[in-house]
Amino acid sequence: MNISFEKVRNLTPAQLIAAYYFAAIGFSFLLLRLPGVHRPGIEVSLIDSLFTAVSAVSVTGLTVLSIIDTYSVQGIIILMFIMQLGGIGIMSIGTFFWLLVGKRIGLRERQLIMIDHNQTQMSGVVNLIKEIIKILLLIEAIGALVLTLYFTQFYETFAEALLHGAFTSVSATTNGGFDITGASLLPYFNDYFVQIIVILLIILGAIGFPVLIEAKAFLADQDGSFRFSLFTKITTATFAALLAVGTVVILILEAGNSFRNMAWHEMFFAALFQSVSSRSGGLATIDVSLFGEATNVFMSALMFIGASPSSVGGGIRTTTFAIAILFLINFGRGKNSIKVFSREIYLTDVFRAFAVIILAGFLVMVSVMILLVTEPEADAIAILFEITSAFGTCGLSLGLTPELSSIGKVVVMLLMFIGRVGLISFIFTLGGKSDPTNFHFPKERVIIG
Amino acid sequence: MNISFEKVRNLTPAQLIAAYYFAAIGFSFLLLRLPGVHRPGIEVSLIDSLFTAVSAVSVTGLTVLSIIDTYSVQGIIILMFIMQLGGIGIMSIGTFFWLLVGKRIGLRERQLIMIDHNQTQMSGVVNLIKEIIKILLLIEAIGALVLTLYFTQFYETFAEALLHGAFTSVSATTNGGFDITGASLLPYFNDYFVQIIVILLIILGAIGFPVLIEAKAFLADQDGSFRFSLFTKITTATFAALLAVGTVVILILEAGNSFRNMAWHEMFFAALFQSVSSRSGGLATIDVSLFGEATNVFMSALMFIGASPSSVGGGIRTTTFAIAILFLINFGRGKNSIKVFSREIYLTDVFRAFAVIILAGFLVMVSVMILLVTEPEADAIAILFEITSAFGTCGLSLGLTPELSSIGKVVVMLLMFIGRVGLISFIFTLGGKSDPTNFHFPKERVIIG
Ligand SMILES: [K+]
Ligand SMILES: [K+]
Repeated sequence: MNISFEKVRNLTPAQLIAAYYFAAIGFSFLLLRLPGVHRPGIEVSLIDSLFTAVSAVSVTGLTVLSIIDTYSVQGIIILMFIMQLGGIGIMSIGTFFWLLVGKRIGLRERQLIMIDHNQTQMSGVVNLIKEIIKILLLIEAIGALVLTLYFTQFYETFAEALLHGAFTSVSATTNGGFDITGASLLPYFNDYFVQIIVILLIILGAIGFPVLIEAKAFLADQDGSFRFSLFTKITTATFAALLAVGTVVILILEAGNSFRNMAWHEMFFAALFQSVSSRSGGLATIDVSLFGEATNVFMSALMFIGASPSSVGGGIRTTTFAIAILFLINFGRGKNSIKVFSREIYLTDVFRAFAVIILAGFLVMVSVMILLVTEPEADAIAILFEITSAFGTCGLSLGLTPELSSIGKVVVMLLMFIGRVGLISFIFTLGGKSDPTNFHFPKERVIIG
Repeated sequence: MNISFEKVRNLTPAQLIAAYYFAAIGFSFLLLRLPGVHRPGIEVSLIDSLFTAVSAVSVTGLTVLSIIDTYSVQGIIILMFIMQLGGIGIMSIGTFFWLLVGKRIGLRERQLIMIDHNQTQMSGVVNLIKEIIKILLLIEAIGALVLTLYFTQFYETFAEALLHGAFTSVSATTNGGFDITGASLLPYFNDYFVQIIVILLIILGAIGFPVLIEAKAFLADQDGSFRFSLFTKITTATFAALLAVGTVVILILEAGNSFRNMAWHEMFFAALFQSVSSRSGGLATIDVSLFGEATNVFMSALMFIGASPSSVGGGIRTTTFAIAILFLINFGRGKNSIKVFSREIYLTDVFRAFAVIILAGFLVMVSVMILLVTEPEADAIAILFEITSAFGTCGLSLGLTPELSSIGKVVVMLLMFIGRVGLISFIFTLGGKSDPTNFHFPKERVIIG
């Protein structure tokens, strides 16, 4: 056991997670610098390759360059692979590898996964990772199959249809948000079949792995003894509420604006798709820069909230938002405890939620201020949109990304990183000394951030 | 005892406070519609008179019209009177009146004052109000005297110097933010004497009455037994820190921008004055629309935080901000309790702080979204600045106020009202059923919001 290994052992689990993500970004960056990944004659600067690597590992999808114009087929396949790495979570991959080579998972490694997926129970970690990877690959395979078969009508060769089908499925399921059409899903604005498939894939990726695993257990349950956890109830209810509110508000704000000349079903699908996408998907069926400023601010708020914990998405996470809302309602009624679905929320979770919200708000404000200085040409709302999109690992943009200065790129990369790792982990990474298990109680709890 | 009086009795204290403020606004509105308050030939619409009334009662200072071009000397004196009403607090005035006419202050009325000034102790309320009014009037009188004598060099008649001296003193001390120069304090950009006097008056008004009262007790203390309260220590430290950080950040952001051609002392005073003013004063020695966008966002954050509780200012209040910061530091270190100045902060106060911050953030976001729709010509940052200025009852503006649509005016009026009443009172006003004393503990506590 040498000194450097000793040093790794002394890192807190949260620091190790950040270190793993750093390694994944470095590895992805190197992959994207391999010969043959770019189209002939295309030169990509180091910072732009790094930006693409961070964006793909964090499954954000913001990009300073056009994927289809820049990368060869090999490059596109590598990008799919990186999104896969990011979507499943570097930690799960790492631990799964340990499993494969026959090592037993020790307490330390179990803790790592536990925090990466915000799981509070120490048992079942190994099975959890297997389940995560199985479910994600199954969903992606079904999505890729359906889309490939459907795309054969648009492309001359099956290989082309397969490339587009597989890429779209991976990009949607991992909420990667990258596209190889050169214009996101705008070509499918009137193709509700593709939209419904993509919406389902995005939701399955963003709803959170615990929800999927519990849903599977529920379906397999024979004697009716299965009970959904409080976490699953809260996150699913919040996710659904955000989708519905998002769709309705976008409809109201844009009905007289960018939706002016649309049929009712076009309006509905445009609002629904962009509401789903702002959860963390990042794909778009409409040029979001056509939306009004109020809609842009509203979508910034949606992206700030982000997806479920233990999912492929970022942001403050749905449960954090839900607990803040529940707290406010209870506080306004003069109650000091929060009860929901016949359970009481732990005080510590309320505190975690507040810490995440306030820090995230501060982070977004400071980032916006920096970009207001470094991007003097850019519109303030475009900057807010870009920053919240990065923090929510969403990937929607009002067109600012390719125009970013080097400092702007670094800020956006940092936000994508923090958004993916999660602010709670990030706090512990910086704090260093604390033991995250201080915040874990034996009873049933809700996952925050 | 008739039915309508019974209804008043059934109102919660917080609802009564809101009702009192409504009455004060109505009364002020009527005063501003009296014959002779306007200059000859000037017509003011009803909504503009209402806006001025709300702005003066809430001591905000945002104005849709130029005071000096619109109001006669009588009108200006009425405006000073309304700022006085707003500054001292309608509740104090009401209770002081009860005192004057010999009525004993009952439990119900004591509670009203207690909440209006966020005081948690039931005793000493009567003395508190007397002290508040005495101290405020004393400060104003000294300020008016000094400024009037100084202004005699600028004005031909003593009456003119007195009008300007008294108005500036009242506007500064109550943090009213109105001006009768037509250009705030821009004419005094190089007059550091006037600036220092105004800075002192603004700070004395915004630092919080309890601080002034304790400072007085400290000065009168003979045997050294006097101890400053935790509240006074926290609010004063936060206030000073915000002033210093505000000055430094404005200096850094503007040194290469609007301060480019200034001498060092001009830069310093310009940064200091605007930092003090964004606490809640609202007067300006420089056209803040010359500042860069990052500075505007930063000042919006300062105005959002606002002044001390139990002061003439608004916003989420300094203590709310301080507790949030202290909580984050302690949370990052893995501690679940907050210790400061050798005291522990009550959990309930932490909860109140979070409720205020999250609600205020939501309120600002929704207001900005509304104005983005109703003011299509306006710049997004100018809207954010206007909204936070109203919520912080600050009164600085990037020039949007006179351009506001009717809906915009209503939104800004509502924010000035909520900012002055305080969000905590406002929550209880809406909730209605709760008893605010649920949130009061017998031990030493910190005032929030
Ligand atoms: K994404
Ligand atoms: K003011």
